[in-house]
Amino acid sequence: MISNEIKSQVLIQALPYIKKYSGQIVVIKYGGNAMINEELKDAVMNDIVLLTQIGIKVVLVHGGGPEISAALKQMNIQSTFVGGLRKTDEETVKVVQMVLAGKVNKDLVNLIQLRGGNAIGLCGIDGHMLTAEKINDDLGFVGDITEVNSKPILDALSLGYIPVISSVACDGDGNVYNVNADTAAAKIAGELRAHSMISLTDIEGLLEDVNDPASLIPDVSIGQVPRMIKEGIISGGMIPKIDCCVEAIRRGVKQVAIIDGRVPHSILVELLSDKGIGTLFH
Amino acid sequence: MISNEIKSQVLIQALPYIKKYSGQIVVIKYGGNAMINEELKDAVMNDIVLLTQIGIKVVLVHGGGPEISAALKQMNIQSTFVGGLRKTDEETVKVVQMVLAGKVNKDLVNLIQLRGGNAIGLCGIDGHMLTAEKINDDLGFVGDITEVNSKPILDALSLGYIPVISSVACDGDGNVYNVNADTAAAKIAGELRAHSMISLTDIEGLLEDVNDPASLIPDVSIGQVPRMIKEGIISGGMIPKIDCCVEAIRRGVKQVAIIDGRVPHSILVELLSDKGIGTLFH
Amino acid sequence: MISNEIKSQVLIQALPYIKKYSGQIVVIKYGGNAMINEELKDAVMNDIVLLTQIGIKVVLVHGGGPEISAALKQMNIQSTFVGGLRKTDEETVKVVQMVLAGKVNKDLVNLIQLRGGNAIGLCGIDGHMLTAEKINDDLGFVGDITEVNSKPILDALSLGYIPVISSVACDGDGNVYNVNADTAAAKIAGELRAHSMISLTDIEGLLEDVNDPASLIPDVSIGQVPRMIKEGIISGGMIPKIDCCVEAIRRGVKQVAIIDGRVPHSILVELLSDKGIGTLFH
Amino acid sequence: MISNEIKSQVLIQALPYIKKYSGQIVVIKYGGNAMINEELKDAVMNDIVLLTQIGIKVVLVHGGGPEISAALKQMNIQSTFVGGLRKTDEETVKVVQMVLAGKVNKDLVNLIQLRGGNAIGLCGIDGHMLTAEKINDDLGFVGDITEVNSKPILDALSLGYIPVISSVACDGDGNVYNVNADTAAAKIAGELRAHSMISLTDIEGLLEDVNDPASLIPDVSIGQVPRMIKEGIISGGMIPKIDCCVEAIRRGVKQVAIIDGRVPHSILVELLSDKGIGTLFH
Amino acid sequence: MISNEIKSQVLIQALPYIKKYSGQIVVIKYGGNAMINEELKDAVMNDIVLLTQIGIKVVLVHGGGPEISAALKQMNIQSTFVGGLRKTDEETVKVVQMVLAGKVNKDLVNLIQLRGGNAIGLCGIDGHMLTAEKINDDLGFVGDITEVNSKPILDALSLGYIPVISSVACDGDGNVYNVNADTAAAKIAGELRAHSMISLTDIEGLLEDVNDPASLIPDVSIGQVPRMIKEGIISGGMIPKIDCCVEAIRRGVKQVAIIDGRVPHSILVELLSDKGIGTLFH
Amino acid sequence: MISNEIKSQVLIQALPYIKKYSGQIVVIKYGGNAMINEELKDAVMNDIVLLTQIGIKVVLVHGGGPEISAALKQMNIQSTFVGGLRKTDEETVKVVQMVLAGKVNKDLVNLIQLRGGNAIGLCGIDGHMLTAEKINDDLGFVGDITEVNSKPILDALSLGYIPVISSVACDGDGNVYNVNADTAAAKIAGELRAHSMISLTDIEGLLEDVNDPASLIPDVSIGQVPRMIKEGIISGGMIPKIDCCVEAIRRGVKQVAIIDGRVPHSILVELLSDKGIGTLFH
Repeated sequence: MISNEIKSQVLIQALPYIKKYSGQIVVIKYGGNAMINEELKDAVMNDIVLLTQIGIKVVLVHGGGPEISAALKQMNIQSTFVGGLRKTDEETVKVVQMVLAGKVNKDLVNLIQLRGGNAIGLCGIDGHMLTAEKINDDLGFVGDITEVNSKPILDALSLGYIPVISSVACDGDGNVYNVNADTAAAKIAGELRAHSMISLTDIEGLLEDVNDPASLIPDVSIGQVPRMIKEGIISGGMIPKIDCCVEAIRRGVKQVAIIDGRVPHSILVELLSDKGIGTLFH
Repeated sequence: MISNEIKSQVLIQALPYIKKYSGQIVVIKYGGNAMINEELKDAVMNDIVLLTQIGIKVVLVHGGGPEISAALKQMNIQSTFVGGLRKTDEETVKVVQMVLAGKVNKDLVNLIQLRGGNAIGLCGIDGHMLTAEKINDDLGFVGDITEVNSKPILDALSLGYIPVISSVACDGDGNVYNVNADTAAAKIAGELRAHSMISLTDIEGLLEDVNDPASLIPDVSIGQVPRMIKEGIISGGMIPKIDCCVEAIRRGVKQVAIIDGRVPHSILVELLSDKGIGTLFH
Repeated sequence: MISNEIKSQVLIQALPYIKKYSGQIVVIKYGGNAMINEELKDAVMNDIVLLTQIGIKVVLVHGGGPEISAALKQMNIQSTFVGGLRKTDEETVKVVQMVLAGKVNKDLVNLIQLRGGNAIGLCGIDGHMLTAEKINDDLGFVGDITEVNSKPILDALSLGYIPVISSVACDGDGNVYNVNADTAAAKIAGELRAHSMISLTDIEGLLEDVNDPASLIPDVSIGQVPRMIKEGIISGGMIPKIDCCVEAIRRGVKQVAIIDGRVPHSILVELLSDKGIGTLFH
Repeated sequence: MISNEIKSQVLIQALPYIKKYSGQIVVIKYGGNAMINEELKDAVMNDIVLLTQIGIKVVLVHGGGPEISAALKQMNIQSTFVGGLRKTDEETVKVVQMVLAGKVNKDLVNLIQLRGGNAIGLCGIDGHMLTAEKINDDLGFVGDITEVNSKPILDALSLGYIPVISSVACDGDGNVYNVNADTAAAKIAGELRAHSMISLTDIEGLLEDVNDPASLIPDVSIGQVPRMIKEGIISGGMIPKIDCCVEAIRRGVKQVAIIDGRVPHSILVELLSDKGIGTLFH
Repeated sequence: MISNEIKSQVLIQALPYIKKYSGQIVVIKYGGNAMINEELKDAVMNDIVLLTQIGIKVVLVHGGGPEISAALKQMNIQSTFVGGLRKTDEETVKVVQMVLAGKVNKDLVNLIQLRGGNAIGLCGIDGHMLTAEKINDDLGFVGDITEVNSKPILDALSLGYIPVISSVACDGDGNVYNVNADTAAAKIAGELRAHSMISLTDIEGLLEDVNDPASLIPDVSIGQVPRMIKEGIISGGMIPKIDCCVEAIRRGVKQVAIIDGRVPHSILVELLSDKGIGTLFH
Repeated sequence: MISNEIKSQVLIQALPYIKKYSGQIVVIKYGGNAMINEELKDAVMNDIVLLTQIGIKVVLVHGGGPEISAALKQMNIQSTFVGGLRKTDEETVKVVQMVLAGKVNKDLVNLIQLRGGNAIGLCGIDGHMLTAEKINDDLGFVGDITEVNSKPILDALSLGYIPVISSVACDGDGNVYNVNADTAAAKIAGELRAHSMISLTDIEGLLEDVNDPASLIPDVSIGQVPRMIKEGIISGGMIPKIDCCVEAIRRGVKQVAIIDGRVPHSILVELLSDKGIGTLFH
């Protein structure tokens, strides 16, 4: 039993945020381990549907590394590794396209529909939404996004759909590329002039001391990032992730939050209360 | 400090209500003692502004008996009493119009504006919105509403204003009448096909045992009302008040809540949580 | 019996004016003695309704000095005088608000409705339409208008209502001020980019010789005003009145007429015939 | 010099009519001798332009018998007469089309443009607006209108043009017919659900005693017509003319006035004053 | 029997042109001998209707010299000749107006309607669409177009009509002028910012050698025209015709084709196949 | 070189069809061997883009049996067969979803984009567009479509996209089903009230004598189908295919054509010439 006083406190705090976000675009990047726990996945989809119902225009961007690896293995496709990274040859990129756009994507759409939402699943090939070029020849069809055609996404939003987008791109000759989902989310958010981007990860956020969850940094201005990298606060796999945050904000996104996808309903708390969760870049 | 879990529980409960009420009309009847405490008045106006911000179309209907009495006294106007009720002669009704439409009404508008809302103050004379006729000759210009012209209210709502309406009516010859604010609210709610009406009073709601606040009846189907009157559960001043609830529902309003205006933010809790406050008629 | 020739002469003259004014905003300032004679008041309201019917967007701005004085007297509120002007303390300004917004305003609305028009009564508090600041501390809550929010007026016009506006303003803290009705009308007309403003007074217009009605000056370019003040043609109470005309024209109003409210239907003759009535500033 | 009192009397009478007719369609049938006097023609075109400026949607339908006769004579085309009526053979109907649609029509358009109006000249061939069939074989291409396609007329009106329409029709095989202009006007008015039709003739209207202009009958309900024909009040050439009035009213036109085209500005007086001119059928 | 292969070849070629021209304005100048053969005239009208059906906005501009001469002869109007050109006095210009706007124009409208199109016939007097001034006093009412009011044409197009326009103009005093149809078409096309203009003539197009139809020049950039005139490739009556092409293109028309009106359906082939017909100026 | 006469013949025939189909919905079922030849596939995609450019709203529905078999083999998934039909267990249906929605679908989208079209790839899961139930338990997740939600398709068409739809469906619990593509196309066409459905197969159409291509039956009224089945003209695999045609027509589709996908551009010839290709059911 939550008391009327607590209820009204939470609501008085939340309502102005609802007003603030209503009609705004929020891009949610979803991937990694936060995507494996079925219960958490369900909570995330539920939050997305709730946000949509109060007028927030949610765009869901996803990758799916583990599922790709499993399919390659099952199909007996051996991978060559270049500098520790898997080379994506023509056979491999076909599997990537098939797994991301045909399996992961449509499974997420299915979950959203089951929770009462209204979703359509797209990838960078649809409406040639994401144009890419090779990062380098050694890695094969691993692409860098060079252009985002935001029209299909805006069209879907304007008609009330939640667009669910796989991190698959193509070029003007029809070649298909695997692209990084964090980058895809950031470029899409930038092109859409989204209000916010939320990256669901499996860490608490940016920590002053990586071993102490209590050392969470709640708030970073992107001007501080170079210094933080220099000081080692941002390091390793966090560097490219945070580079995406910086790029999104440079392209006009107002704020990017890296939040803990393992906390149930972390999206709601992040968006609708004064003291959010994780680390907010702005 | 409210925990993330509590926050998300309150929000998960509230968001579907926000969707449900968004775009709907809610008529709030405000009067009596709940109107005298300045702090409570401020909380009520704040709630109204918050509700408006999440897309609820609020209509505020008010009376103002105590302020009328004070003005009559200050102006040295003696009242005749008929069967315990004050006779409203021509001089008196002029004061009623002036106090309700010029003082109480514009003061409420002023408060809403100060909290960030956007209000306009009207009375039944504006656009000849409320047409009335004499209840009986003995009481003078005390009127029964015979027709509601909802167009000015709908126009104001469609343009994003909170209409604040005084319980003053007129007839086709231009005579002005004092009308009961509960009745005015119910007739307006009915004519607007409002989703809900909320009556802010200074009791907990309908009590099984008038001396035991714990005996609150949370939920009444209007079919039960005649029996409850017979059994004395509804009695005295509650009878006309609840008759208004019944009439509003008969005219198409989905629910009418009688709630305790002395509980801060009772409107928010009533509208946005599973377990409301007060008594809900439907 | 008016002959067909006379009729067609009047009509041929009037029709192009009707075309010219149709869809245009005309602000009418109404006050003073022209407001006391009930028959004249009725003729004025009738003219306003007729003008509205042919597509002119009329905004009525009113004061109400005599009614305020009467109410203060009846309520036994003693006034302090500063330099001959009544000091408007907090108690007084409450009466001003109540009398103007609750009595004079709604009575005019009532009359317009009775003549077939469609009016709503507002004051500067509604939608915080008129923002003011103190003229000086000595005079209390007598205000100078610093900002006009024309949206509520334009909204009312666009929905086909005749807005009737009391000369009451407020500030960002919710304090209420009595403001001069001529100034209010001029500022409102300027902000609305009204086509015309008509000031109904109880003089013939501007006279070359104040004692000779035949010396009426029909037409003044605002560039001539300083010279006319210097020469004493404009003097006394006419100076602030004509300053308002000048200000309205500087803010984009095309013409301001000072006409004799004691001549029945002077508004119609002024607007719809080649040779108007009173003095036209442009 | 017309006094302010007279002016306001005429205006107070006229303004409600302006409201009443604004946005309504008025079909004016123009022909016969009223079309020959150039000064009168100019006054008629001027009235039409004035009516248009106050929002009345005027449709002008014309014939042109005298001009056809003159052209036939100049082209040395001999006419056969059948029962006193000229037979319209193929050669003759070509001249009728050419004179009405090319000369009379465009000359009227030209005059309206010169008075500031905005007209386009059409005939029954345009958009196959008027479909006709032969009245009988003996008379050749003299047609009875069987169908009116009102779309081109409504299109022209909706775009702000004054449609000027010649009484020329055609059939599904492209044959062209001369049709009676009174009938054409009545059928067009009926199909347009015009508010009014005005027939400009060279008589005072319907007279009780044909020799006494003072015996004008101002007002006829179409139910009275059969009796009036029986009593000889309506006789001779008036019978088909009044049959057209009756038919127009049966098809939904509210009123048809037969007025004296020789009185300057008779259209204005008829439409915009309580006591019109001529005879009004309803 | 045309084979499926041929059919698909023609269609694959035509469909992109249909897309290209759909919604575009094409002005067709029609006149001279191509107008006399009834079978050809019918094929031209048919093509116009077909083009309209696939969304091309066709404007038809016509002259009618031979029909004017015949009418003048029949009416026994003698013409004075000035430098080989017929002087157009007041009597003559009346005949020109009557024949072009009343006969040729309405006959073309009639044919288009019979083929299933939807046409209205206008001339330069309608909406004072073509304003002209005298070329010189000796030639009388022969005009040079000084201004085109394209509104009536655009209005007709927007409502789905094919405007058929006679080469008759007028001036601000209402004087009427005969104007050259090639010039009229070019000025109208320019003012409409038409995509294309097609001039239907009775020659193959521009020939390198006037006696050898095989020497057709398919394609001329207007920059080449002065040289071609100097070299005598463009000479005689072709000079003013091609001057019109040049002027149309200078005013923004993308291409002007001079095509052989004697080839059936030459308009379709010109617009909808890679290798058109005649000579294309651009 | 195709002569002007042939060109104009083809065009005169085609243009009215273009008008007829413009703005109409045409559902194209694509599958089987016609999908394997890359050159033919390219011609089909090209035709679809051309049709779209002239305003036809094309919906492409596809299956992909051979690609599913190849993937199952590569993934070493053994199939059980029931009555000769492959049982679709949970593992298999995941592969079906992945191959159809992730590979075949996005490859077709890619091809359309490369030819200048604007496509998005969807399946029955998106917006829960196709709801199905099990045909019988033995076959596992092979579904019968019980409901089509046409909104996402209509939305895509209204925004100018070519929807490409995989024959994958789901139920209210989120289970996924493989559905027959012919049936899916027919149900979708019926629900969309499509004008036409075209089924691209690898036969000439319906043959009187299955061994004689010259015995093609060009035209079948669905009333004739039962008799043709009885007489053995329709037999074997043609029965379910033609049942789909019959069902589509019963649901309001005007015509269904079974055409030979091996003839290049057979879609264009079928839609845009008097004598189509294949067999037309109506």
